[in-house]
Amino acid sequence: MPDLRFFHRAGPFSLRDIAALVGAEPLRPEADAITIHDIGPLDTAGPQDISVFADVRYRDALTPSRACAIISSRNLARHASDSNRLIYVKDPRLAYAQVGQLFYPLPALEPGINPRALVHDSATIGAGTQIDAGAVIGRGAEIGARCHIGCNTVVGDRVRVGDDCRIGANTSISHALIGKRVGIESGVTIGSQGFGFVPSATGHARILQLGRVIIEDDVQIGAQCAIDRGATGDTHIGTGTVIDNLVQIAHNVRLGRYCVVCAQVGIAGSSVVGDGVMIGGQVGIVDHVTVGDGVRIAAMSGIVRNIAPGAVVGGTPALPIRSWHRQTIGLARMFRGANANRKNANGKN
Amino acid sequence: MPDLRFFHRAGPFSLRDIAALVGAEPLRPEADAITIHDIGPLDTAGPQDISVFADVRYRDALTPSRACAIISSRNLARHASDSNRLIYVKDPRLAYAQVGQLFYPLPALEPGINPRALVHDSATIGAGTQIDAGAVIGRGAEIGARCHIGCNTVVGDRVRVGDDCRIGANTSISHALIGKRVGIESGVTIGSQGFGFVPSATGHARILQLGRVIIEDDVQIGAQCAIDRGATGDTHIGTGTVIDNLVQIAHNVRLGRYCVVCAQVGIAGSSVVGDGVMIGGQVGIVDHVTVGDGVRIAAMSGIVRNIAPGAVVGGTPALPIRSWHRQTIGLARMFRGANANRKNANGKN
Amino acid sequence: MPDLRFFHRAGPFSLRDIAALVGAEPLRPEADAITIHDIGPLDTAGPQDISVFADVRYRDALTPSRACAIISSRNLARHASDSNRLIYVKDPRLAYAQVGQLFYPLPALEPGINPRALVHDSATIGAGTQIDAGAVIGRGAEIGARCHIGCNTVVGDRVRVGDDCRIGANTSISHALIGKRVGIESGVTIGSQGFGFVPSATGHARILQLGRVIIEDDVQIGAQCAIDRGATGDTHIGTGTVIDNLVQIAHNVRLGRYCVVCAQVGIAGSSVVGDGVMIGGQVGIVDHVTVGDGVRIAAMSGIVRNIAPGAVVGGTPALPIRSWHRQTIGLARMFRGANANRKNANGKN
Repeated sequence: MPDLRFFHRAGPFSLRDIAALVGAEPLRPEADAITIHDIGPLDTAGPQDISVFADVRYRDALTPSRACAIISSRNLARHASDSNRLIYVKDPRLAYAQVGQLFYPLPALEPGINPRALVHDSATIGAGTQIDAGAVIGRGAEIGARCHIGCNTVVGDRVRVGDDCRIGANTSISHALIGKRVGIESGVTIGSQGFGFVPSATGHARILQLGRVIIEDDVQIGAQCAIDRGATGDTHIGTGTVIDNLVQIAHNVRLGRYCVVCAQVGIAGSSVVGDGVMIGGQVGIVDHVTVGDGVRIAAMSGIVRNIAPGAVVGGTPALPIRSWHRQTIGLARMFRGANANRKNANGKN
Repeated sequence: MPDLRFFHRAGPFSLRDIAALVGAEPLRPEADAITIHDIGPLDTAGPQDISVFADVRYRDALTPSRACAIISSRNLARHASDSNRLIYVKDPRLAYAQVGQLFYPLPALEPGINPRALVHDSATIGAGTQIDAGAVIGRGAEIGARCHIGCNTVVGDRVRVGDDCRIGANTSISHALIGKRVGIESGVTIGSQGFGFVPSATGHARILQLGRVIIEDDVQIGAQCAIDRGATGDTHIGTGTVIDNLVQIAHNVRLGRYCVVCAQVGIAGSSVVGDGVMIGGQVGIVDHVTVGDGVRIAAMSGIVRNIAPGAVVGGTPALPIRSWHRQTIGLARMFRGANANRKNANGKN
Repeated sequence: MPDLRFFHRAGPFSLRDIAALVGAEPLRPEADAITIHDIGPLDTAGPQDISVFADVRYRDALTPSRACAIISSRNLARHASDSNRLIYVKDPRLAYAQVGQLFYPLPALEPGINPRALVHDSATIGAGTQIDAGAVIGRGAEIGARCHIGCNTVVGDRVRVGDDCRIGANTSISHALIGKRVGIESGVTIGSQGFGFVPSATGHARILQLGRVIIEDDVQIGAQCAIDRGATGDTHIGTGTVIDNLVQIAHNVRLGRYCVVCAQVGIAGSSVVGDGVMIGGQVGIVDHVTVGDGVRIAAMSGIVRNIAPGAVVGGTPALPIRSWHRQTIGLARMFRGANANRKNANGKN
């Protein structure tokens, strides 16, 4: 189904191997021998493909689907009229992601340094790493094994990048220590000067930004993000945290492990975000606040004070999410206007 | 008037030719022979220049203007004490834009591939296309005729770019099929991985992003935008849609034809925006909603549910625009404070 | 304290010279001979280091600090049990920034043009300027003395950059005249086309963008910003204004002197911002409004009309800051819900 100009499909794979990969319940004996050629959604998967039924809202697509095998769960199976082709796992969405990675692995690296790249003599490049045209690797930089550094990406002096990292094109990295299996998209800036000034009569005097950016293992960073280095101490992004596009992370922010940070979020200087926090799109977090572990913040909210662990909040300034919903619904009702009914009847507004 | 270091002026042109270009009403016979050397606003245009009167708010600049000819409409002409130099068209703003393009055409291309660019042997480059230093054109990529690919821009493997496209500097494009006459500014990322993860105990498993970015003809994309490729299926931008700077378009978004998307807007995954929609600056649209044709969204609003075609909305969550205005005015009044008058009298607050 | 892989420390310096640099009150005679080796915060500074006490909130760190000398003010000194090591200045934060710049000066330039950079024959490059690999300097461009142009940065035809400017990597500049001592981070776009269109039946006709970007002396611009050139006339950024990351400045914006513009702010076309204005993160300012001198705008606010000089405002649309606080507190109370206390008692939301 994917455009094979852009994606390379592996396989085919036996259903038995796929089931083992995702930790499925044992297959019916006759299913064991089936060969699967591709993956796809219920409505477009063909008779040699595997699909997924992970959300009850798609139950109407289940029966008409031509898929040969369908990953699902015992619980969801209640909605299936025919359970013959179902593969049972605990978390069908996770299993489907794993099967996807099986059929469409990351493009194989083409190890080596493109002659148009410029790698400083004192830099060290790990085995199997691919460095593309126009990339610049600075003095004393250390790039791990099996990395991909995209075209025109700049890795500054003495930056360290761990094994198995994939960095896109036109990205600029300085003053950073980056862990393993980190993915960084294109057009990103990491390690820029933080925004610290002392106002004075003759202008704003810059406060030195003498820290680093520490990015732990398995972090993903979206396109066009800006992550400043610390002023005193470091900006820190914890293991497994994923960050969408156009996100701003200011100096000395500490972002915990396994957080999800949606697009266009801004986190101001020195704020601390706990583990497993989910931050909706365009949220702003002011400087010097603490957001507890497991907090969930609705899109477009503004965080202006500390948030207790586990809280679910929304609005600007953020309230408990139910209070926020009550407020928006209440206000909409309050200001609907005395003649709202008549207006609606007229089809206006 | 423009700084001729940066802009090349064509002409002069006869007023007759200009009038024909913009579909003006017939000129007075004596106007026919006039030669126009430049364009400019009413207050700075000189006696050999053409100007425009398209907005009644500028009527005081009309009489003092030294412009030789002034594009306007029959309706606006009521505000002119002297109609001798007026040129009548239906849409003066459109006509002025057209005359502007006549006097200041896009810089002529300098066809050829800069020796510092790197074009893969298997890529095809159309006639008359200019590829600047540091640009990288990938394996099997197809660039149309009369395109301009700016310095250090990266066009990934098998990307297709139609004729007459202009792409700025330091832009990164992958997994994309791009139509004709598309303009893309500098520092843009197109085709990056969408933000899709399945949470799991050992971290967030990435959901494969196996779609593309489809950009139809005559689209304009501003600087520093991020447009992710689809997960299943494509991210799609319709004909003639114009997008300002720093806009986020997530995976599988479908943006209609002739939309206007202002700066820093974010549209989350799989949302569908109809034709002719106008989206103000910093608006956020959550995932999986539908915004109908012709909708207008006030700046900084948050769209969290479907919006019916033709609606005009504002606020977060967005309300009909009149309700939103009623609410903001009502609240400002309600919380002005018991002693607001006294405070104002004291010049405070 | 800083990671000396990334930062070069100068010194040591005599305390006498340091005191003179920051205009401190005369030292005790025995302090005169002290030599200082580094700077650092109170809690980590060592016995050969200088620190700062500039905020009463850190008074508990004062006594335990091992710092040899501590910059403070007469007023703050009241909180110190032992004043022996205090250095008195008027503005300790400013003094500390100055000492920081003494110990950690900007990296020394390595003058010259990297062989992998491409400088047009007609460009002029000032003495002592460093141009890194992959940078492209256009036809007739003028780069001042002692500048640093980072890797893969593109300076367009006839752009002018004053003396002592530092520009990061992967930045694109066109149609711009830039003053002295300007700092521009990585991944920035300056001089892109403004977002001006005339809607028409056959699509949105682009309005020519024939202006420039004028950046005065001592301006700082953060990573990933987008600054469009003017349409008619120029986009203008006044002396000493500092701009954080991911900020959008539209065509014909006039930003005054010594402003502070936080991350992800957007200022729409033709708006005028006075001198000394402070704009919090993610603020939006609509087009064609005027923000007076000295205005302060709270983070995430929306400015939709003119703001009088000196006003302090917040909210969307922005109100006087006290009204805004009164409103958010009042609404939170109003919609807390009838059974809020009971719910809280149950530990729920």
